Amino acid sequence: MKEKLIWQGSAQLAPVPAVLVGCGDGTRRNPYNLITIGWCGMVCSEPPMLGIGVRPERFSFGLIRRTNEFTVNLPSKALAETVDYCGVVSGKALDKFKERNLTALPGEKVKAPMVAECPITLECRVKQTLELGSHWYFIADILAVRVDPDLVDEKGKLDMEKADLISYAHGHYYEQGPCLGHFGYSIRKKK
Amino acid sequence: MKEKLIWQGSAQLAPVPAVLVGCGDGTRRNPYNLITIGWCGMVCSEPPMLGIGVRPERFSFGLIRRTNEFTVNLPSKALAETVDYCGVVSGKALDKFKERNLTALPGEKVKAPMVAECPITLECRVKQTLELGSHWYFIADILAVRVDPDLVDEKGKLDMEKADLISYAHGHYYEQGPCLGHFGYSIRKKK
Repeated sequence: MKEKLIWQGSAQLAPVPAVLVGCGDGTRRNPYNLITIGWCGMVCSEPPMLGIGVRPERFSFGLIRRTNEFTVNLPSKALAETVDYCGVVSGKALDKFKERNLTALPGEKVKAPMVAECPITLECRVKQTLELGSHWYFIADILAVRVDPDLVDEKGKLDMEKADLISYAHGHYYEQGPCLGHFGYSIRKKK
Repeated sequence: MKEKLIWQGSAQLAPVPAVLVGCGDGTRRNPYNLITIGWCGMVCSEPPMLGIGVRPERFSFGLIRRTNEFTVNLPSKALAETVDYCGVVSGKALDKFKERNLTALPGEKVKAPMVAECPITLECRVKQTLELGSHWYFIADILAVRVDPDLVDEKGKLDMEKADLISYAHGHYYEQGPCLGHFGYSIRKKK
């Protein structure tokens, strides 16, 4: 094996999710908005919690700070260009839902908007906020999950492959590739 | 569009990274170990920081608590079965490096072991620990990044696609699929 290069620390974790975060409550002070977030991860299973990292200069930052709620919408590959758009354009002066022909639906547990075109939405309420540096990290309870019924079979089992989810790595968006195995397959194989 | 199903909150964020976390410092009290982590995400760009969620009952938990260090190794698809294995088997009674024919190399900035077979390693030192529930979340500075020189071109540019990284979604491991676009492509396309 060749000796590894040594670089200074940088944000090289990959792949990461590329999700559309819905925020605002539909009032004039806090209009609905969307922001694409790559710094997003599960932090706890029970209770189910996730976190998102947001720069304070983003328009969505104030919306989340004031409402303490957001939705995490998992986009399918058909929405990849919209995902990119919502990450590079500010919602301060325009309505991204309108610009991208997306449908904002109210959440069941939160006032933040769900993106109806996304196959899966997690409704989240902020529990803890960490001021870290370029980003503040919002840790939130996942209060409800909204699922496209087409992803669920007659036994109620979720087939997430049908969602055609995307990921982000080193400045590029990617489709999900072929399945390599299921959790525990290395052990079952040996038996 | 069909009306979405409403489920109670659960850990449905996807895809997430599936990384091999190296921990321990090679002493008898804190032997080298590996644990597969899916609850891992970037939390801040500047300073570069990430977080990992670990259950307190895992053997690696004590190693990280005592040493305050770990490495995040991004595995290529050739290591998928090893990634699964390191997530389902405990290192309390066996040496996963030995079991899976992996090479533990000392870090440059931390004593935790790097997996030489992984194309990219992030060396991390714990900065903050959050006791959340089933998982504790370790937020850490990324002190150094180790990169396989084969991923870097003559101008020093990293081509992460060559790393053949994998992701995890709803109980399954996946290859990275085709590229859908680069950051900003939705805007450049319009111009």
